[in-house]
Amino acid sequence: MPEPGAAQVAIVMGSQSDWPTMQCADTVLQELQIATDVRIVSAHRTPDRMVAFAKEAAGSGIRVIIAGAGGAAHLPGMIASMTVLPVLGVPVRSSALSGQDSLLSIVQMPAGVPVGTLAIGEAGATNAGLLAASILALSDAPVAARLLAWRQARTDAVALRPQGAA
Amino acid sequence: MPEPGAAQVAIVMGSQSDWPTMQCADTVLQELQIATDVRIVSAHRTPDRMVAFAKEAAGSGIRVIIAGAGGAAHLPGMIASMTVLPVLGVPVRSSALSGQDSLLSIVQMPAGVPVGTLAIGEAGATNAGLLAASILALSDAPVAARLLAWRQARTDAVALRPQGAA
Amino acid sequence: MPEPGAAQVAIVMGSQSDWPTMQCADTVLQELQIATDVRIVSAHRTPDRMVAFAKEAAGSGIRVIIAGAGGAAHLPGMIASMTVLPVLGVPVRSSALSGQDSLLSIVQMPAGVPVGTLAIGEAGATNAGLLAASILALSDAPVAARLLAWRQARTDAVALRPQGAA
Amino acid sequence: MPEPGAAQVAIVMGSQSDWPTMQCADTVLQELQIATDVRIVSAHRTPDRMVAFAKEAAGSGIRVIIAGAGGAAHLPGMIASMTVLPVLGVPVRSSALSGQDSLLSIVQMPAGVPVGTLAIGEAGATNAGLLAASILALSDAPVAARLLAWRQARTDAVALRPQGAA
Amino acid sequence: MPEPGAAQVAIVMGSQSDWPTMQCADTVLQELQIATDVRIVSAHRTPDRMVAFAKEAAGSGIRVIIAGAGGAAHLPGMIASMTVLPVLGVPVRSSALSGQDSLLSIVQMPAGVPVGTLAIGEAGATNAGLLAASILALSDAPVAARLLAWRQARTDAVALRPQGAA
Amino acid sequence: MPEPGAAQVAIVMGSQSDWPTMQCADTVLQELQIATDVRIVSAHRTPDRMVAFAKEAAGSGIRVIIAGAGGAAHLPGMIASMTVLPVLGVPVRSSALSGQDSLLSIVQMPAGVPVGTLAIGEAGATNAGLLAASILALSDAPVAARLLAWRQARTDAVALRPQGAA
Amino acid sequence: MPEPGAAQVAIVMGSQSDWPTMQCADTVLQELQIATDVRIVSAHRTPDRMVAFAKEAAGSGIRVIIAGAGGAAHLPGMIASMTVLPVLGVPVRSSALSGQDSLLSIVQMPAGVPVGTLAIGEAGATNAGLLAASILALSDAPVAARLLAWRQARTDAVALRPQGAA
Amino acid sequence: MPEPGAAQVAIVMGSQSDWPTMQCADTVLQELQIATDVRIVSAHRTPDRMVAFAKEAAGSGIRVIIAGAGGAAHLPGMIASMTVLPVLGVPVRSSALSGQDSLLSIVQMPAGVPVGTLAIGEAGATNAGLLAASILALSDAPVAARLLAWRQARTDAVALRPQGAA
Repeated sequence: MPEPGAAQVAIVMGSQSDWPTMQCADTVLQELQIATDVRIVSAHRTPDRMVAFAKEAAGSGIRVIIAGAGGAAHLPGMIASMTVLPVLGVPVRSSALSGQDSLLSIVQMPAGVPVGTLAIGEAGATNAGLLAASILALSDAPVAARLLAWRQARTDAVALRPQGAA
Repeated sequence: MPEPGAAQVAIVMGSQSDWPTMQCADTVLQELQIATDVRIVSAHRTPDRMVAFAKEAAGSGIRVIIAGAGGAAHLPGMIASMTVLPVLGVPVRSSALSGQDSLLSIVQMPAGVPVGTLAIGEAGATNAGLLAASILALSDAPVAARLLAWRQARTDAVALRPQGAA
Repeated sequence: MPEPGAAQVAIVMGSQSDWPTMQCADTVLQELQIATDVRIVSAHRTPDRMVAFAKEAAGSGIRVIIAGAGGAAHLPGMIASMTVLPVLGVPVRSSALSGQDSLLSIVQMPAGVPVGTLAIGEAGATNAGLLAASILALSDAPVAARLLAWRQARTDAVALRPQGAA
Repeated sequence: MPEPGAAQVAIVMGSQSDWPTMQCADTVLQELQIATDVRIVSAHRTPDRMVAFAKEAAGSGIRVIIAGAGGAAHLPGMIASMTVLPVLGVPVRSSALSGQDSLLSIVQMPAGVPVGTLAIGEAGATNAGLLAASILALSDAPVAARLLAWRQARTDAVALRPQGAA
Repeated sequence: MPEPGAAQVAIVMGSQSDWPTMQCADTVLQELQIATDVRIVSAHRTPDRMVAFAKEAAGSGIRVIIAGAGGAAHLPGMIASMTVLPVLGVPVRSSALSGQDSLLSIVQMPAGVPVGTLAIGEAGATNAGLLAASILALSDAPVAARLLAWRQARTDAVALRPQGAA
Repeated sequence: MPEPGAAQVAIVMGSQSDWPTMQCADTVLQELQIATDVRIVSAHRTPDRMVAFAKEAAGSGIRVIIAGAGGAAHLPGMIASMTVLPVLGVPVRSSALSGQDSLLSIVQMPAGVPVGTLAIGEAGATNAGLLAASILALSDAPVAARLLAWRQARTDAVALRPQGAA
Repeated sequence: MPEPGAAQVAIVMGSQSDWPTMQCADTVLQELQIATDVRIVSAHRTPDRMVAFAKEAAGSGIRVIIAGAGGAAHLPGMIASMTVLPVLGVPVRSSALSGQDSLLSIVQMPAGVPVGTLAIGEAGATNAGLLAASILALSDAPVAARLLAWRQARTDAVALRPQGAA
Repeated sequence: MPEPGAAQVAIVMGSQSDWPTMQCADTVLQELQIATDVRIVSAHRTPDRMVAFAKEAAGSGIRVIIAGAGGAAHLPGMIASMTVLPVLGVPVRSSALSGQDSLLSIVQMPAGVPVGTLAIGEAGATNAGLLAASILALSDAPVAARLLAWRQARTDAVALRPQGAA
């Protein structure tokens, strides 16, 4: 069990332009009072940094890695190849192909190296945060309680009828 | 921590025809000495069974759920809507669209209800097993050790040159 | 035959954001003087509400259910799994994939549980209303007459030449 | 209400090669004791026959039309343009594009002329039969009872565990 | 050979909203001094008008038909099924699927009923006009000369270097 | 008007492997007693031959060119860039992408250079032959008569019910 | 080795509208002090110019050709068919299909005539410039040094954390 | 210039199963008398080997790297991130998605790190070999001569008419 305050979830992304998407993961984890470590780690521009990050993550107390990237999105899978921590991948929406390239580049990993892939874009980033929380919750009862409450609040917030309907 | 021998990972699928795919998840978990509970739970033909399963899974000692389905594949997402356990989804290859429908039906979940999605078909099922193991490994050192050894053996098995090359 | 005034068509959708699309179904049914019951029923955020709705619909006088959802759109198929009422599905246009995910998630149902699927977006919602009307018209002559008149008016409104052509 | 024995559901298809698919609709309707009228009606090779069929269907006692076609599949939509009976469309799997062309040609109807579209191929044909039955069941209690029983039998037939699992 | 002034090319489209696209066909034919007959003929809203148009076109002096439609685009193929005149199809760009549905609905005709299909959108409409002209040019030397000149002018208008390049 | 016996339609293809597809165009033209000139002209392996063919076709009595190619299929469009004869394109089914690449490479021509594109594969080749015939029929009454008869025979051959239906 | 100042890389494109994309190739090559020759060469509107360019490029000192085009993008492949210089292709984003047609038209070349294809749009054009530089760098040490420095500067510019993260 | 006999082209691939595809690159390079170094280098199973290979390639005399992989194909792009040698990528055909995932994972690289991508499958591998040869030919006249001869032989081998045509 990591010491209080140390980041348990790393959120990494290929470039600054991925931040508006990946921020959704950070936001939901903050709501659940789970400390994060947010970094830019580019598979293609900073491969050495990526290798170092992937190999050191487990030792530095990180328990789940969320990685987001777009286009030929290699970051999640490459990190997964160098750690046995659970790696969750977020396909960032790309300009020409709307994230279809990102999705396939992340999800279609060969047998042996898994990446748990979420939806394209902001919904996927939020869900990566929630899935990380559900993993931590397996051995952290307060996180489990907060996650249940978060989910219940979402359920309670659903109106019976759409605004604007007669 | 569940008692020894009790299943920690549930592997559920929509029909008998998904078994050849989902068996890959069971196989790798057996190799890692992780007990599984394998069931047919059809979202569309047995919705009541699905609701009961999803709601009772956490209480019965299950810690990770692997759900596989094909076509309009609703099983992983619907289970995820009724549990806070981590749910991993395996898109089973469908006949007409080769699993493209399965993939999108599983991965494109809205914000709030995550499914960690793996690749289409057998590679995805194997990886679902491995990702489940990596989640359990966070709080189970023997599993962690076996997972590392499994991964290392895969690495060691890679030949230097392809058979048949001059 | 339901009592006058009671809703014969339920229009359900996964979230408030689906309303601008699904309103087209409501509008055309109002034009045809068919009473509707419009609700938000989220498969993922309110699964219990969904189960209750699906199981009680037939008993409460509903004769046709129109369900709209986007992305990994499970609402129409899950409702169809719990009722023998005719269920019509409207794929709501999603942001990244323009509704291609919604369409496949709704239409590719396995044998045994049908969802009559309409086009992506507003045209599909309007057509879901019209198809519901055509179903009711089989045993309701005034509805049949109004539907015929509605269709004829559409035909009569087609100009001979496009405005702007020389 | 049609006289006993008269066909209530027409099953039409573009060519002989569609029969192995469309037979699934006929089979399930026979299981439900619903009389069918099965015909080849080609939108492209026999347009006059198609026009005559579409215009005369309602008057001849047909209550639901199931139309299957592949490729540039115009049959369901064109029939729907000439009748207010409910029209259900089955995208037959095409050789080059696996029915993706059939699906889009059938489902993407413009506002005003609905076709309730089912899945590509045999599952879609079976479901077209079931959806037709659910429509007839609204005003035919014996059909409703048989449909419920058919569905229940399918549910009962789902095994608890896949054959071959340990 | 038709009398001077009579329209040799019919340009038909499913709705007013297709005109901004189809106008490109009309414009290029006017530039080539080929008389056109521009009409709205909706396969789905005015099927009788479509049948009448298709059957009467050859007799009224039309030699080539250009038909444009979007979504489940049945107009070109249905007209082709009722005439032996050459039919050219223009896939109009649709809102959700950008004309991919229009393209497949038009081009994937079964053996026996051809539609010569052009590109999605305005380029396709212009090219439908040019292809119609090339067909007429086979038996009309002045059209052939004007078409050659039009093509040569396009060639001559291509700059050597892009504006803005150093 | 060409002298009797001289080929009026050229059928060209990129390689021997396209012949089983393109033979369908040749067959239907022979049935209609239209002389063809069948050649291998590879845009990529024999560009000079292609240029020569395209520039000389009109002068040698050819009136319509049918060009088939697969993958990055440049033959139809490149020929069209060098002749004002009508060019019809047949997307040959490719191994990896089933002709989707062939289709887009042929149909998505820019404004100015049209290729009338037919369906992927054998149906498209047959239809290219029929469309060529319909073009020739505009100024050749015997061809028009034979084409009408061919079409009528196809219509007459459509059975009323599928073989195997009860 | 070409004389100093002579262009070693030709950048050609089908039309003025491709310039905003292709300019990215020119910009990066200028940053690397590699002289370019930028031209409009349209496969479809100026086929003779294209043939002349392709056949003369090697003799005029050009060592790498970068060709960009959109839609049915034939320019890169056709140039490659007429030179043994390395040809790099840039799929320009098209309006209806976002460059998916451009990509397939360029990359899916048959065995025998290679085009090294880059990503759709501006990233692809920049990378075409960089790949051309890496080819020249094999026999030009100063270019190699500048390319290494360019790459290093990109690496150094990657921040540790995204701006806006807490 | 490397010493005679030393490999100038490295051909690397992710697994043994890629060899039947990648062998085509090796074969054509052998035909051109260019020495190759063929290795299995898995981005996901042997990331350390990949890093070492990529960083040492330039120093060991390799001048062009051909990398093939399927599915979430990260090998070509990751190697390109760690060398300034030209990297050519071959998308190996994958089982579920026929190489569409491989293609997008390889070609859609972000600006800064180019991979010259060839066609899916064997044609792409052959062409990677030819493109590598054309790069070497820029500074190796005998290779240039052999490449020209290879291309000419391919041109000469194209028959005038398809076998089987009348």
